[in-house]
Amino acid sequence: MERTKVAIIGLGTVGTGVAKLLLDHGDRTARHAGRIPWLEKAVVQNLNKPRKVEIPDGVLTDNLDDVVSNPEITVVAQLIGGIEPARTIMLQLLEAGKDIITANKALLAIHGPELFDKARQLGRCIAFEASVGGGIPIITNIGQCLTANQVTSLRGILNGTCNFIITQMQDHGTDFETALREAQNLGYAEADPTLDVNGADTAQKLSILSQLAFGVRGNWEDIPCKGIEDLDIADVRFADQLGYRIKLLAIAKLVENEVEMNVSPMLIKKGSPLAEVQDAFNAIRVRGDAVGPVFYHGQGAGQMPTASAVVADIIDTVTGRSQITFNNLELWSESHRPRSMADASQTRNRYYLRMQVTDKPGVMAEITGILGKNGVSIASIIQHKPDQESLASTVPLVIMSHQTAQNAITKSVEEFMQSENIDSKAVVLKVL
Amino acid sequence: MERTKVAIIGLGTVGTGVAKLLLDHGDRTARHAGRIPWLEKAVVQNLNKPRKVEIPDGVLTDNLDDVVSNPEITVVAQLIGGIEPARTIMLQLLEAGKDIITANKALLAIHGPELFDKARQLGRCIAFEASVGGGIPIITNIGQCLTANQVTSLRGILNGTCNFIITQMQDHGTDFETALREAQNLGYAEADPTLDVNGADTAQKLSILSQLAFGVRGNWEDIPCKGIEDLDIADVRFADQLGYRIKLLAIAKLVENEVEMNVSPMLIKKGSPLAEVQDAFNAIRVRGDAVGPVFYHGQGAGQMPTASAVVADIIDTVTGRSQITFNNLELWSESHRPRSMADASQTRNRYYLRMQVTDKPGVMAEITGILGKNGVSIASIIQHKPDQESLASTVPLVIMSHQTAQNAITKSVEEFMQSENIDSKAVVLKVL
Repeated sequence: MERTKVAIIGLGTVGTGVAKLLLDHGDRTARHAGRIPWLEKAVVQNLNKPRKVEIPDGVLTDNLDDVVSNPEITVVAQLIGGIEPARTIMLQLLEAGKDIITANKALLAIHGPELFDKARQLGRCIAFEASVGGGIPIITNIGQCLTANQVTSLRGILNGTCNFIITQMQDHGTDFETALREAQNLGYAEADPTLDVNGADTAQKLSILSQLAFGVRGNWEDIPCKGIEDLDIADVRFADQLGYRIKLLAIAKLVENEVEMNVSPMLIKKGSPLAEVQDAFNAIRVRGDAVGPVFYHGQGAGQMPTASAVVADIIDTVTGRSQITFNNLELWSESHRPRSMADASQTRNRYYLRMQVTDKPGVMAEITGILGKNGVSIASIIQHKPDQESLASTVPLVIMSHQTAQNAITKSVEEFMQSENIDSKAVVLKVL
Repeated sequence: MERTKVAIIGLGTVGTGVAKLLLDHGDRTARHAGRIPWLEKAVVQNLNKPRKVEIPDGVLTDNLDDVVSNPEITVVAQLIGGIEPARTIMLQLLEAGKDIITANKALLAIHGPELFDKARQLGRCIAFEASVGGGIPIITNIGQCLTANQVTSLRGILNGTCNFIITQMQDHGTDFETALREAQNLGYAEADPTLDVNGADTAQKLSILSQLAFGVRGNWEDIPCKGIEDLDIADVRFADQLGYRIKLLAIAKLVENEVEMNVSPMLIKKGSPLAEVQDAFNAIRVRGDAVGPVFYHGQGAGQMPTASAVVADIIDTVTGRSQITFNNLELWSESHRPRSMADASQTRNRYYLRMQVTDKPGVMAEITGILGKNGVSIASIIQHKPDQESLASTVPLVIMSHQTAQNAITKSVEEFMQSENIDSKAVVLKVL
């Protein structure tokens, strides 16, 4: 059987998983590819670091040029995270005539246009299944399986770390900091988890999905984005009492040829599929105009799920499917008739509001008065009595609104902040 | 932009949907295919029948030969159900050099080996996304997206009609016959719904998925199969009381290089994703050794969801992806190292038993004695008192077992039938 020589750049968690699949299951990958995806080189920084996979002699190298200047290596899995040197290496590999597989969502979200244009100019392709959704093959599903549809909306839980943290808070009453440390101990969260918990990772993934589904060309940083770093366990508990779970949700929705996008923690009714996504799992609901809703659920992170996505891309590239898909998708291309992001400030949502209010007569009238004046209609109110032992003179007040415009809520919150009966830290969460 | 001339054989529900997508959304399909999938001919039996889609002049024909002997038509969606003439038409089309898309699961389950061998001999391909799961792209997901994995198990709700009927029984207390008529009125069930409700349709779909995931070569009729035609609303209610929902489930599981397969109504714990699949939706959980569990949920039937799958296949065939996938999958091929179906009679399961027993002392001791003797351990028992107004001298008794071998249950039920205190119609359902 013929071989296609493949290289891996970076033997971190995912790279090690990819090497394992190629080396230990060569029969499987060869059967599905019709030829052997042969691991010729694995480029690492430190040759002496112990590895959790046994790499055959001559494969490991610390010299990128062993890949770049070997014309027999035609397919490269570039598995280094971050922007540089990943970007420069990608460009070098394309110039050297390699087709590339990557899991690097930050790089694609920021430099997608440059990299994809370069690949098109050079007749090469980039496959990126592993960049979004971990083991869920969402890129192929949107880019190939649902092509008879115009996707009309996307909703997803796209960050395993955040979902793990929220699940810990929900199920075990763990506070945010403790849950985050646990996620780090389990290897879900990065050493620097900032991009996970502030929503940036989710927004980058949403920008890739939206490019694919809607042709949205725009800066991922323009997506309205709120993370979970300020998520208070009190809100997880109140939401639970009201029959909801809080999830960090990415949403993109086609509205009159523009696309409304948003990343934020939202309340989702218990029992609905997205609300029941636990631990480090991811899930995505895609709605197409022909197929209706399709829901995907799977492991959103971790060595082998992500390696599964990378190796599927290697097989697709070795067989030639990736090239066909890449050429037809015209991603980040001017010829794709790009759609723009819509202003979401007029979007109507239901809202959850929590504030700490002075426990005295007239306060409720003041609050409901402000909401009424701004056109916010109240669906329900929970007011808790203070603990008997508590000396606090304030009590938590939770309000769920009916559908309302975002600026009506913003305006109400501004007015709350001017009242001496209302604690300035009003928590505002959207309700799905 | 170049055109690839496409024909549709059969303008029934699905064919009409496919024509709509090709005619009304030509820009979309062309963009994803890189060329125009041009509807050149649509073959129907009756040219004068009113159509729910406006077909351009010259496209409609009642002469199959207009497709077969037109060498410019290279891609054909064969959308006639049943075995003949569908089989003969498929062979004619292959001989004439066409690549084929089909939604016909019965044909593939029975004549897959013949059709796929013929296509391979002639260098043609067959795409069949729409044959299983309606709008859920499960064929591409198993055949392409999860190729880095050995699939270790599959579980699915694969028949929309059955799921609709069970949902009606569950949610509205409708009896089986009424729910079936409702499914027919809504267009979910065929005029002759026998193959839906007796599980045959589900078993045929499972045989296709198992060929794809495990290389199981075998007769779909050898899959142990039980339908829902005898499902009693009493069992739906008892299951509900016990915290379960009943679903018609298809299961295939890799056990020591053989594949255990089964189709039967099963009790599934409420809240688990498969238990929450409502109405005519389908769902499939695939477990891979690298990716872990991946869950898919979408519309399992209906015009546009199925047309979405057919048109995705048309696009894949026009672009050349289908050919690559078809050649590498080696489905129903001797070179695929086929696995065989395993004997499931030794498989351990939890069981739900319901019988009508005489309401007198000693009966419970007799029943639990029979179960104990056969090694069936009891997890819980519900015995209902007879209605005050009821004159019946028997009462329903429901028993949930712990994990137990199937033959222990079979043997117990045989012994129950010999007791004069136990009604002979003991209901036995597996519990997931």
